[in-house]
Amino acid sequence: MSELRKDPIVDRWVIISRERGKRPSEFSSLKQEKKSGFCPFCPGNEDVVPPEILAYRQPGSQSNDSNWRLRVVPNKFPALHIEGDLVRQGDGVYDMMNGIGAHEVVIESPDHLATLSTMPIEAVEDVLWAYRDRIRDLAGDERFRYILVFKNQGQAAGATVEHSHSQIIALPIVPKRAKEEVEGAKKYYDYKERCAFCDIIQQEINQGVRMVSENHEFIAVCPYAPRFPFETWILPKRHTHDYQTNSKNMIEGLALILSDTLKRLNRVLDTPPYNFILHTAPVNYQDTSSYYHWHIEIIPKLTRVAGFEWGSGFYINPTPPEESAKFLREAKI
Amino acid sequence: MSELRKDPIVDRWVIISRERGKRPSEFSSLKQEKKSGFCPFCPGNEDVVPPEILAYRQPGSQSNDSNWRLRVVPNKFPALHIEGDLVRQGDGVYDMMNGIGAHEVVIESPDHLATLSTMPIEAVEDVLWAYRDRIRDLAGDERFRYILVFKNQGQAAGATVEHSHSQIIALPIVPKRAKEEVEGAKKYYDYKERCAFCDIIQQEINQGVRMVSENHEFIAVCPYAPRFPFETWILPKRHTHDYQTNSKNMIEGLALILSDTLKRLNRVLDTPPYNFILHTAPVNYQDTSSYYHWHIEIIPKLTRVAGFEWGSGFYINPTPPEESAKFLREAKI
Repeated sequence: MSELRKDPIVDRWVIISRERGKRPSEFSSLKQEKKSGFCPFCPGNEDVVPPEILAYRQPGSQSNDSNWRLRVVPNKFPALHIEGDLVRQGDGVYDMMNGIGAHEVVIESPDHLATLSTMPIEAVEDVLWAYRDRIRDLAGDERFRYILVFKNQGQAAGATVEHSHSQIIALPIVPKRAKEEVEGAKKYYDYKERCAFCDIIQQEINQGVRMVSENHEFIAVCPYAPRFPFETWILPKRHTHDYQTNSKNMIEGLALILSDTLKRLNRVLDTPPYNFILHTAPVNYQDTSSYYHWHIEIIPKLTRVAGFEWGSGFYINPTPPEESAKFLREAKI
Repeated sequence: MSELRKDPIVDRWVIISRERGKRPSEFSSLKQEKKSGFCPFCPGNEDVVPPEILAYRQPGSQSNDSNWRLRVVPNKFPALHIEGDLVRQGDGVYDMMNGIGAHEVVIESPDHLATLSTMPIEAVEDVLWAYRDRIRDLAGDERFRYILVFKNQGQAAGATVEHSHSQIIALPIVPKRAKEEVEGAKKYYDYKERCAFCDIIQQEINQGVRMVSENHEFIAVCPYAPRFPFETWILPKRHTHDYQTNSKNMIEGLALILSDTLKRLNRVLDTPPYNFILHTAPVNYQDTSSYYHWHIEIIPKLTRVAGFEWGSGFYINPTPPEESAKFLREAKI
C-alpha cells in the first residue's frame, strides 16, 4: 500500500509508492531501456491490462474486445488505490495519509505509432472528451480534491510505454503547484476584481510578441516567465475555471489548437519529448469559478541544465519566450 | 543582458538569459554531447576563464598562476551580471528586473578526475570554506537577497564541464523554494516556539529508521517525505540558520559527513549523477536566526519518471526513505 506524506516545512505532499519499490541495482541511471516487441496497449492485448473503465468503441463491439478507438484502464502499477477510507495520521512532527486515489491510463489510439500530433483531429477530440468524462466521474467521489491529467511523451519525458497515452491521477489533496496557482489567482482577483488569466490573455493578444496561434476559442502562447525553453500554454479565451464544463465547440477548438501546437513544436524542435499538464480547478473544494482559469501547459524536454531547478524553485531559461514564440509562429506545418 | 521575470500568478522568478540563447537546432534534445580533450578548469588553462575572485594557493604562488588548490572564477557565460543598478519595472500585468547578480564557479581541485567523494578530506574542506568565503563577500552587496550554492555532478545532472566544480549565484530576490522554506519554518516557530528542523533532527535521531550516518556536528538522513529515491539531507545538529557562521569544527564535521554520504551513494547506486543544493538563510532580509536552519539537500538523478513533477509540484517516489536509508547505512565504504 502506498502512502501520502507531507513535508513538515513546505506544504508539499509526495506519494511514497512501496509497491513500485526498486532495489538500488534496478535504477537504470538514465541508461537507455531495452524495447521489447510486445505492447500492452495495442489491440488484441486487452487482457494484459485491467478491464476498461471507459472506452469509445466501434458500433456493436463489446467491452474489452479489440474494436475500440480509445480506452481508459486502471494503471496496472497504480501509485494510489481506489478502495478504502481516507485515514490521516501523525507521527511526531510528520503527517501522512494512506494512499487512497485513482490512477488511470488513457490509451489514446489503437495505432501503436500514432501520436497526438499525427492522429486525425477526431481522435484528438476523443482524447479530450475522455479527460472530461473521467474528471466528471472522479469528481463525484468526495474523497478527492484534485484530478491531475498529464502526458509524458517520449522516454526522456518519463514515458515507459511507447504507445501514445496520458495519465489521470485523482488525489485526496490539492497538489502544491495547483494550490499556489489557485491562491495566486484569488489574490489577484481580490485586488483587481478581474481574473488574472483573462488579463494575461488580453495583454498577449494585444502585444502579439509571445503569441503562437489563435482560433475562435483558444490561444497558444509562450508565457512571459517560462521556466523552460519553448514552454507553451494553451488557454481558453473565454473565462472558464473548470475543464469539466467544456462544450462541444470548446473541445473542437482545443483539439485543433493542441494538434497545431504540437505540430509546430515537432517542426521547430525535431519532435522533442515533452510533458503536458492540464491545469484545472480543484474538485470538492472552495468555489474558484470567478478567479481560476483552466489551461494546458506544454513543456518540451530540451535541456539538462534544469539540474538544480526543482530543488531551488529557481529557473534559468536560455530562450526568451518572444524568440521561441516567433519560431513556433513562423513554423511551416 | 539577461532579465529576471516574475510569473504573474505564482510567486516565481525566472532568469531569461539572452546571451545564452540558442537556436532551436542547437538544443541537443538530451543527446550525448561530444567530449573535447580540452578542459578549461585544468591547471595551465587559467587564461581561458575570467581572472580568479578567490583562490587557495601554494605558498609563494601568484594570482592566476597554476599553483592552486582551489579557484573561484566568474562564470564565463553568466546568467546574471554584477555591474549596474537594480531596476524594477512593470509591463502591463507583468513584472521584471534587469539581470543583476553574480554567477561564479568553484573549481574544486586541480585534479581533472577528482570528485568530492574521491578527493582528500582537506580538499573537501577547501570547497566548503570557499562557499563560506564567497557567501560572506556577496552578502555584503546590499542588492542581493539570496546566495544560491549548488552542484551538478555528472552530465545527466546538468554538468557541462566534467572537471569537478560547484556554482554560486547571487540573486536580487529570494527564490521561491527558499522563501517557502523560510516561511514554513517561521509558521512552525510562531506556533511551537521551536525550530522545525531541530524537532525533525530530534525525531530522526530517536527513531533511527531514516538515519544514514552521524558525527559530532551533523546528521545525514533520508527525509520523511522525499521527492526522489535516495534523496538525502545533511543537517547540523546544533541550531544555526546561516552557513556563513560556520566554525572550523563545523566545516571539518561537514567535510567528513559530506564525503561519507557521497561515498555511500556511489557505493549503493553505482556512482550516480546528482545535484546538491545548499539551503541557507537569505541575506539582507528579515532576521531568520531563531527559526531557520541551514542544511544541504542531495538529489541523485536516478529516474526519468519525474517527467511531470516540476509542472504539478506533485511527486511520486518509488522508494520509501526508510529503505534507501537502510541501504545507505549498511553500505560498505
